Amino acid sequence: MKTILILGAGLSASSMIRYLLKHADSYNWNLRIVDQDKSLIEKKINGHKRALALDFNALDPNERKPEIDRADLVISMLPARFHVEVAKDCIELKKDLITPSYISPEMRALHEDAVSKGIIIMNEIGVDPGIDHMSAMKIIHEIRDKGGEVTSFKSFCGGLIAPESDNNPWHYKFTWNPRNVVLAGQGGAASFIHNGEYKYIPYNRLFDRLDRIDIAEFGKFEGYPNRDSLSYRSTYGLEQIPTLYRGTLRRPNYCKGFHVFAELGMTDDSYKLFQSENITPRAFLNAFLPYRKGISVEEKFKIFLREDRMYLYDQFEWLGIFEKDESFGFPNASPAQLLEKLLVRKMSLEDNDKDMLVMYHEFEYKLEGVNRKIVSSMLNIGEDEVYTAMSNTVGLPVAICAKMILTGQIHEKGVTLPVNKPVYKPILEELKAFNITFEEHESILED
Amino acid sequence: MKTILILGAGLSASSMIRYLLKHADSYNWNLRIVDQDKSLIEKKINGHKRALALDFNALDPNERKPEIDRADLVISMLPARFHVEVAKDCIELKKDLITPSYISPEMRALHEDAVSKGIIIMNEIGVDPGIDHMSAMKIIHEIRDKGGEVTSFKSFCGGLIAPESDNNPWHYKFTWNPRNVVLAGQGGAASFIHNGEYKYIPYNRLFDRLDRIDIAEFGKFEGYPNRDSLSYRSTYGLEQIPTLYRGTLRRPNYCKGFHVFAELGMTDDSYKLFQSENITPRAFLNAFLPYRKGISVEEKFKIFLREDRMYLYDQFEWLGIFEKDESFGFPNASPAQLLEKLLVRKMSLEDNDKDMLVMYHEFEYKLEGVNRKIVSSMLNIGEDEVYTAMSNTVGLPVAICAKMILTGQIHEKGVTLPVNKPVYKPILEELKAFNITFEEHESILED
Repeated sequence: MKTILILGAGLSASSMIRYLLKHADSYNWNLRIVDQDKSLIEKKINGHKRALALDFNALDPNERKPEIDRADLVISMLPARFHVEVAKDCIELKKDLITPSYISPEMRALHEDAVSKGIIIMNEIGVDPGIDHMSAMKIIHEIRDKGGEVTSFKSFCGGLIAPESDNNPWHYKFTWNPRNVVLAGQGGAASFIHNGEYKYIPYNRLFDRLDRIDIAEFGKFEGYPNRDSLSYRSTYGLEQIPTLYRGTLRRPNYCKGFHVFAELGMTDDSYKLFQSENITPRAFLNAFLPYRKGISVEEKFKIFLREDRMYLYDQFEWLGIFEKDESFGFPNASPAQLLEKLLVRKMSLEDNDKDMLVMYHEFEYKLEGVNRKIVSSMLNIGEDEVYTAMSNTVGLPVAICAKMILTGQIHEKGVTLPVNKPVYKPILEELKAFNITFEEHESILED
Repeated sequence: MKTILILGAGLSASSMIRYLLKHADSYNWNLRIVDQDKSLIEKKINGHKRALALDFNALDPNERKPEIDRADLVISMLPARFHVEVAKDCIELKKDLITPSYISPEMRALHEDAVSKGIIIMNEIGVDPGIDHMSAMKIIHEIRDKGGEVTSFKSFCGGLIAPESDNNPWHYKFTWNPRNVVLAGQGGAASFIHNGEYKYIPYNRLFDRLDRIDIAEFGKFEGYPNRDSLSYRSTYGLEQIPTLYRGTLRRPNYCKGFHVFAELGMTDDSYKLFQSENITPRAFLNAFLPYRKGISVEEKFKIFLREDRMYLYDQFEWLGIFEKDESFGFPNASPAQLLEKLLVRKMSLEDNDKDMLVMYHEFEYKLEGVNRKIVSSMLNIGEDEVYTAMSNTVGLPVAICAKMILTGQIHEKGVTLPVNKPVYKPILEELKAFNITFEEHESILED
């Protein structure tokens, strides 16, 4: 019998718990799951006899360590900043650990300790980061295996609303933490490399510098650059690649609209607005428009938009940005906090809405003097409001990895991520059963 | 005999030291001056027997306190962050203190202690802050005294190059810390109030949202908004004023050009550029322009500028921004650091150059049902590269205030600034002898 300790049972843990319970009898697993909200766990395990809901404080090492000690494998779905403390316990108690989050510098520093204790600490094995690593490395390795050289890699990922639930002019609903969406891209420029030239895009141009992407039957998307593309050179072993670019996908008009918010200054979280509790949506917009006597806010906003962006006007009006009857009632709020409130009112998931996860890779490589291109895309639609695309794409790779570790299929040790074939190959293979499938198309590039 | 202790003998101390030495014999003053660079002091006192150059460490309380103890008055021209420590010593030792810098919250917190010890800690008595407070309060008090109500106050100040030394297309040279000029306006939005509406301008629009100002014989200027206008409501006793706006003055084309740097992302100091030591001016610009095959940097920059801003092209070319022969040789540099290097190469003061300090106030007020306007402007040209306009306008009010404190003309106690008539009136009067004079014009406003 093996015991799996799961720390945190939030949104993205649903699909993972379902997978592990489905296989619990055949593999003889017991799940011990802790969350601050015990009822959340009980809903997800639905009386399964192989799972136990716990309510100790996972952030308290004294309560956590005895639980880690009785487990064979720990999965941390806690907020990313808590993973390092859990990892230290796992090293001390010689327990394998999985997290879906980015490897922090503090986490990376534990590598030698983890190796010396013979344990694996697998990170970045959800989605962006996770499935993106695995699906990209598969292609990079295939190109290398036939002697090709990767010259360009562009990659995009987006958590969006499914086409059947897409009923607003922004073509977006929050399937993820709204605050993070409002603050996306802030703090330093987006950096990447294009044909050997380093490029930097400041926040004020981020949502205006877009890549248009067409994914066959799924339609049109736009990608804005992620903050840091360059660190992926070492992650993917592409140190000398001339072009490397990563971006976030949205449906057309979202980015151009969001650029207007950024340009106005409404995404700023660094200061508080005066008397913010009295601000209506209309006054919020007006605070960022120049004073002009005898001209309505609508007219001033049109002047700000300019003729070439007037097609965006309706989507702002749809948001209720000109409403003047009710204030936000949010004291001591930053612009970003009021903007979040404005957007959440209209862009939240409704009953029966489904989400969608889209990934798109574009490789160029040279093989025997010929320039070739591979496009690889994946689109996954959520099952319902619990087993969302986000929950499936984050939770299933974690769960499959757990199975592989417990059945001795992974021999790597230390602080790592899923860029090696023995890890990504079986996971990508098994994900196909869950409709997480990459379509690949290869072509020869004209000069 | 009275002893004046002067901490710091940098650029803006020159005119102050000259003034105090000129009056030292008649008032029986001795000056004890300390600076890390003793030769700097010796040049400024030029063998005057009333002055002593010291080289103790003014930042070390053990070395500083005995010197404060033997003084009757302390003037701190140290960097602003050190004033509070000096103020605490002055409170303990019951010595009056003058600084030209903004009152920090920590300084403000010392008010009661200073009052209880019967000392004055006079701050913000140089220029912006200083002469701006005094000249504005004079007019505000005059309007109040005749029963008027101030409805609008806009105020601008700029440290610029004198017309006779203005020989570049930016009409700007650094007369002040270049790093502060490059980073000006960053960190939060500029906030002000216009006709009762709070307005916020984010950094990405700061240098694009300009006021045009014409000052009779001195020509055209442009003003961009300062970060914080709203705190001046309480400073000036104008809590209910519907319009209050403060800005920084530049000559035309400077702001529109600087806006291009900000828009490109070249003023960012929050991250380091890859391999910055190898970057040439041309590559620096190119790093912020989109990749386009077969198009020169000049052409890409023109596309970025757009037709309506093409008149700015020459001033960028003049900066040498397209040069590709020599790299900056600046390892681990931020964009702002390379931009500073680029600008300082071409915009530094040359021999015999003179600087200029410009101030402009615009008041609107209502008196007996009639709306009136007062414009008050001051322009001071530096004498030479030592007794600059900056040194005169910062140092002379400090020096005159020192005289007034030592001769018992100021009865205020505590942490204060020059907004009261007994302080500002004699100072403004005496500044006239140094060509620091305000021209006032009053008119009746049409409806």
